[in-house]
Amino acid sequence: MEDISGGVTAPAGFKAGTAKCGIKAPDKSDLAVIVSDVEASCAGMFTTNRIKGSPVLVSREHVKSGTARAIVANSGNANVCNGEDGLTAAVAMAGETARLIGCDPVDVLVASTGVIGKVFPVEKVIDGIPRAIANLSRDGSIEAARAIMTTDTVPKETAVELDIGGIAVRIGAIAKGAGMIRPDMATMFCFITSDVDIEPSLLRKALHQAVEMSFNCITVDGDMSTSDTVLALANGMAGNATIRSRSRAFKSFYEGLSEVCLRLAKALVSDGEGATRFITIKVTGAAGKEEARRVGLSIANSPLVKTAFFGGDPNWGRIICAAGYSGVSVEETFISISVNGTMLFNTGKVIQVDETELRNKLSSRDIIVEVDLGMGEAESTVFTTDMSSEYIKINAEYTT
Amino acid sequence: MEDISGGVTAPAGFKAGTAKCGIKAPDKSDLAVIVSDVEASCAGMFTTNRIKGSPVLVSREHVKSGTARAIVANSGNANVCNGEDGLTAAVAMAGETARLIGCDPVDVLVASTGVIGKVFPVEKVIDGIPRAIANLSRDGSIEAARAIMTTDTVPKETAVELDIGGIAVRIGAIAKGAGMIRPDMATMFCFITSDVDIEPSLLRKALHQAVEMSFNCITVDGDMSTSDTVLALANGMAGNATIRSRSRAFKSFYEGLSEVCLRLAKALVSDGEGATRFITIKVTGAAGKEEARRVGLSIANSPLVKTAFFGGDPNWGRIICAAGYSGVSVEETFISISVNGTMLFNTGKVIQVDETELRNKLSSRDIIVEVDLGMGEAESTVFTTDMSSEYIKINAEYTT
Repeated sequence: MEDISGGVTAPAGFKAGTAKCGIKAPDKSDLAVIVSDVEASCAGMFTTNRIKGSPVLVSREHVKSGTARAIVANSGNANVCNGEDGLTAAVAMAGETARLIGCDPVDVLVASTGVIGKVFPVEKVIDGIPRAIANLSRDGSIEAARAIMTTDTVPKETAVELDIGGIAVRIGAIAKGAGMIRPDMATMFCFITSDVDIEPSLLRKALHQAVEMSFNCITVDGDMSTSDTVLALANGMAGNATIRSRSRAFKSFYEGLSEVCLRLAKALVSDGEGATRFITIKVTGAAGKEEARRVGLSIANSPLVKTAFFGGDPNWGRIICAAGYSGVSVEETFISISVNGTMLFNTGKVIQVDETELRNKLSSRDIIVEVDLGMGEAESTVFTTDMSSEYIKINAEYTT
Repeated sequence: MEDISGGVTAPAGFKAGTAKCGIKAPDKSDLAVIVSDVEASCAGMFTTNRIKGSPVLVSREHVKSGTARAIVANSGNANVCNGEDGLTAAVAMAGETARLIGCDPVDVLVASTGVIGKVFPVEKVIDGIPRAIANLSRDGSIEAARAIMTTDTVPKETAVELDIGGIAVRIGAIAKGAGMIRPDMATMFCFITSDVDIEPSLLRKALHQAVEMSFNCITVDGDMSTSDTVLALANGMAGNATIRSRSRAFKSFYEGLSEVCLRLAKALVSDGEGATRFITIKVTGAAGKEEARRVGLSIANSPLVKTAFFGGDPNWGRIICAAGYSGVSVEETFISISVNGTMLFNTGKVIQVDETELRNKLSSRDIIVEVDLGMGEAESTVFTTDMSSEYIKINAEYTT
């Protein structure tokens, strides 16, 4: 597998275009269109929040056919809680895009992110679509990544090239999200393109697994949004033999897809609102994978753990405390905890360590917490940030 | 029911004493002993965290007999994750107290709060017990409330007098807790005394119900501690006819107990770490009481909701979003949301309001969020705080 540039437009046959619709500040792109030259296999995963944005409802229907041509997405307004008008707007976005590129509206996937419950500026968005399509380009990925940003501080894109049976296959993606991020996905988008030739059912399987191990293993603040959307288009233009089963080719593609998703998941965490630390929580020795992840997420979502790391404080007591209320049957005397390679608690016993040395180790941006539950063989790794004064500032001032 | 002064020493036959053991700063009380002149009915409720402090393990055993004479509690070190040594220390605290007041060690209940996983300074505490007992006094409540404080900024006590069958009965209490507070209790203590004559089994029932409606309806940061403890002693010295059933007398006592618990629960929230708002979340129209509470707590624990209120931002979108991921089957088109009396969302429709007027209303310390789920008759009220920059500061710097 090789790193390549070009993000979502790196794979053959994909173009991206953007427009400034005036939903965000006038000088900012806030609409992105990603188009495949030919019909592509598609798959999608969406928020499990009971309150869903209209675009989620529309895209969930549109992915069912298993094929699509384009993705149209805006930032600045999430089109949530807008009732019939919201649904009409999401349908209109798909319709206008379809009309201009010449496909069925059901072949266009829609996504919106931003404030919830504000009237959706449908005219502005519909006006912007022809402009975005007019500037579709093979270099459009990074501007598309910018156009879907909300509180993100940097655009996020990545791409890889891999070999599938002697054929070079590319996978590219852009993502957004900085707060409201937690498993089962939160206000995050990830749009993935590939020129691989794969049947929709297998694309779906690969996407599901890859999301499970990446976006569903990150958390910033435990909040789950109404708009989370991961979409994948695979247009077959690489010319590999169509992937129709869990073959070696499937495995290669899945590895590439996982890598792309994991990179962007980590990029979302790195750009977590107000984050000053990148915290990796590796839980081992669990009875099952789900238990491991639940303990990891309980630790990752604890405001007390997060604020301790913001302060560079090796407060492992808060870590074991969060493990204790995770709902998993942990046992104090089986648990061991290390932070940045220093063991602090060993099967129920506190280890005396040089506090100054430990604090020095904790001054780095990267924090690695290892928790061995001592109960089984399963493990899971979760990524999160600390919680800083800046997080409060960003979120106290967001709407207006 | 009448307000009275005196806190935990207001009821007949109760004294409280304190000592400075040097676990906290040298000039601060950090040990409290509450003693009844005579054997009392007792009941206790404890953290459901899988990781429990040694004092919780000891007190859980000691309340089983249904009677007790005293409570001994320290702050500054929670005696959690100290293994055998921790257990020995908690047993020693009960033993030393019992020896000095002349009772069985099983009649002494123990509680510790503070840092987790630091060696427990058992000698300091044991040395302090005779001093605390030497200054036992009928005015000792407020200093006892101070002695159990950790990050609390004010001591918390309350007391009421009520009439049970023509007899004046008193209930008093002290409590501590400012962060790490969430349902099923977090680092909070509440020690309740009463001179009512009541059988242990009914005291237990009354306490359970009262805690359910008070301490289990508050949340500051969603963290649940390893040490939460609510203890009640009722020594019968008021001379009422022993309460042996769910009689009218039981109901009167329960009302008093509920009032005391609710007052202190609200006091804990008011003193929430860095709190600038007192937020009441009233969820109505739920299919069941548990559903109502779950939605209320999901909203109350959302960092995005909490930071929005810190910023005085009427961001009801975050409220409906948190309701949506509560796990309760809410329906957007049935939901209505009001904040401080202004309806913002009515059965699925956004209400346009004067933003300036609304922001003015939100500048008050008290915020009342009303969420009608439109699905049933059940309701629940939850209390919480906003999340401020000060919260981060307090928790980034706590251990050291």
